[in-house]
Amino acid sequence: MAVTPSFSRPEPIMADIFEIADAGQHPVEIQRATGLTRIVLSSPPANALSMAMMDAILAALADAAADTDNRVVVIAGAGKIFSAGHDLKELTAHRSDADRGRAFFAATMRKCSEVMQAIVRHPAPVIAEVNGLATAAGCQLVASCDLAIASEEAQFCTPGVNIGLFCSTPMVALSRNLSRKHAMEMLLTGETIDARSAREFGLVNRVVPPEYLGTIVGKYATTIASKSAMTVKTGKEAFYRQAEMGLSDAYEYAASVMTENMLAKDAEEGIGAFLEKRKPEWTHE
Amino acid sequence: MAVTPSFSRPEPIMADIFEIADAGQHPVEIQRATGLTRIVLSSPPANALSMAMMDAILAALADAAADTDNRVVVIAGAGKIFSAGHDLKELTAHRSDADRGRAFFAATMRKCSEVMQAIVRHPAPVIAEVNGLATAAGCQLVASCDLAIASEEAQFCTPGVNIGLFCSTPMVALSRNLSRKHAMEMLLTGETIDARSAREFGLVNRVVPPEYLGTIVGKYATTIASKSAMTVKTGKEAFYRQAEMGLSDAYEYAASVMTENMLAKDAEEGIGAFLEKRKPEWTHE
Amino acid sequence: MAVTPSFSRPEPIMADIFEIADAGQHPVEIQRATGLTRIVLSSPPANALSMAMMDAILAALADAAADTDNRVVVIAGAGKIFSAGHDLKELTAHRSDADRGRAFFAATMRKCSEVMQAIVRHPAPVIAEVNGLATAAGCQLVASCDLAIASEEAQFCTPGVNIGLFCSTPMVALSRNLSRKHAMEMLLTGETIDARSAREFGLVNRVVPPEYLGTIVGKYATTIASKSAMTVKTGKEAFYRQAEMGLSDAYEYAASVMTENMLAKDAEEGIGAFLEKRKPEWTHE
Repeated sequence: MAVTPSFSRPEPIMADIFEIADAGQHPVEIQRATGLTRIVLSSPPANALSMAMMDAILAALADAAADTDNRVVVIAGAGKIFSAGHDLKELTAHRSDADRGRAFFAATMRKCSEVMQAIVRHPAPVIAEVNGLATAAGCQLVASCDLAIASEEAQFCTPGVNIGLFCSTPMVALSRNLSRKHAMEMLLTGETIDARSAREFGLVNRVVPPEYLGTIVGKYATTIASKSAMTVKTGKEAFYRQAEMGLSDAYEYAASVMTENMLAKDAEEGIGAFLEKRKPEWTHE
Repeated sequence: MAVTPSFSRPEPIMADIFEIADAGQHPVEIQRATGLTRIVLSSPPANALSMAMMDAILAALADAAADTDNRVVVIAGAGKIFSAGHDLKELTAHRSDADRGRAFFAATMRKCSEVMQAIVRHPAPVIAEVNGLATAAGCQLVASCDLAIASEEAQFCTPGVNIGLFCSTPMVALSRNLSRKHAMEMLLTGETIDARSAREFGLVNRVVPPEYLGTIVGKYATTIASKSAMTVKTGKEAFYRQAEMGLSDAYEYAASVMTENMLAKDAEEGIGAFLEKRKPEWTHE
Repeated sequence: MAVTPSFSRPEPIMADIFEIADAGQHPVEIQRATGLTRIVLSSPPANALSMAMMDAILAALADAAADTDNRVVVIAGAGKIFSAGHDLKELTAHRSDADRGRAFFAATMRKCSEVMQAIVRHPAPVIAEVNGLATAAGCQLVASCDLAIASEEAQFCTPGVNIGLFCSTPMVALSRNLSRKHAMEMLLTGETIDARSAREFGLVNRVVPPEYLGTIVGKYATTIASKSAMTVKTGKEAFYRQAEMGLSDAYEYAASVMTENMLAKDAEEGIGAFLEKRKPEWTHE
């Protein structure tokens, strides 16, 4: 299968490449190119993670996981803000429920955790394309992705502490990416950091001029899409599983993963091609 | 409650602001301003962590935890050294005990671990204000605080390896802040790093000119003191608890913490104030 | 015991200092100086981690561990490449085995994990001296060492994903040194990073001009070799053990380690010497 994806922003230019699966009336817009799924949060200006938005992201992730031709997922934001986190108006509206909102709040936090873990457990790498401000659960979304590329204009914060609601679920993703004092500073002060600090702290892989954001994300996506999907899936799953083990358990597990990987068709093809100095032909098995 | 703290060094200038609770004869000096407790290690030149010093820090932390008006704790050092770690003379004096010192050494290490964990478990954020050299358990004290601001003149080391006593309890805090090779280099060589390296390695949040150290620490303290105490306590506790969990357990736990947080008075007030574009009035509940 | 090691490259100059224990016909060359063991991977150009190479490294590590005079181990590479990882030709040759290679692949991965854990569990600190390219299991070897010093010409990658074989065992070491997104970028893209990025990501401690590599590694080795071997062994073991514990367990464990360390001869000597302002005389007990 030839994989020749090509990503770039602004989107209008890409209209001929991407099949626009959904449009304005939905909270996310799904753009597909060969091997790639681009999930664009499309409720500007805030791209808030309402229940509808989270359901739409989950559905899009599930579709991409079920699509055997998909290789990479990109999550991007329409407009100037990547995502401002939970929908505070929606949450507040449920304060008048009989249970003062408890059931809805719990459902929201569970759903949010489900989205973040669906990214981590997705068979394809998920790249955050961060065009602008990412706050609270929006910042968590960036932290939860396998890779994150940010525009120089992107900003990040976990400002829940300012409104009496500590960013406790965002901290789960944040503290697994940033060192302890950096995470604590963001969480306790609620202050905004710029893209360069985010890179320095390990929240994003790269910071690029806004006009090149789509091109660079596309370059990462193209690179990863050119690999064996079986290999990438095997490795990504193993990465997060071994991260929670002690050293000797991690090695026992990883050694068995690698032995099975060696016996797979694509490893035989890939190693063979390497030794014969030719390009491999993946069957993704 | 209006919280208008103002921290700055050198201390004499602040004498009119801070109520000097204890003075020279005690190993620590406690300075209080509205919402804030400043614990000054006051046994210069070394500010060694003797049993008396550690007991005094524990008592000061307990007092601050019991004070419902307290919002932030700062730990600082009097004189030119932040803290040179354990009191080697005190330890050595117990070598003539019947048990060669075993009971006293064990009590010292337990006490030291108790101090460090009392910081981590304190309901208020604890900020290290590092004016000068922080060595061994003094360096551990910095690593154990939630945030650390250092003067450009500050230096850090874990030199136990030079005197036959590896910094094994300091490594617990150090290795939870620094990446593995950086921590190992400090522990195995015992060499001193400057404040900029400490920042690069994640041991401190910020490095500032010595004349601004108190002002910047005060700015952090003021910022954090302006938040809901309930929110900060909830978040800080959740941070360290979820850090020891696997991803799915961490999310289940954090989601339940956040649901309860949503139902607390301060979240209702804070979110309401945010949506109404007014300043929140915390009841800290 | 006087420890006066002196390391430097290129090796010919050191021929008079180092006792050349093994020569060309073996996959590693062992060089010994007082207190030091230098293991040189000697199958240029790739210095591949074949079964024979891994057995030789394990034997050399075991010899160094058994040598009560040994204080530090250095792992270096002969030629221009540090190590290109597993021997793909050797692995591929076993595809014609009755079991399609399963037994040999499993044995290779187990052996590789054994080498990496033998470094972590070695009583002496192990320093990677990285002269050139370190890929896949070669990069893992660098990550597994306690310290790593790299030449400006060194490069690092985990390119298994390019040949259908994800670097799953390398990721165990990599992900315990680098932050998550940096590790993921290396693993998913397979791209090469230069020595400065490796330092920024925490994979190596220091980057030096190639002509000073041996001198700087020698300086680290000399510094560490001047310490009490008992103290270093105690601390290194405690470091990796406590790293896998929760905070309170880690403190309980580290406090008991430090109490025993206080009662050891070298701590009494070292602390006594420090208080008396004289040089300690270690018995390494």
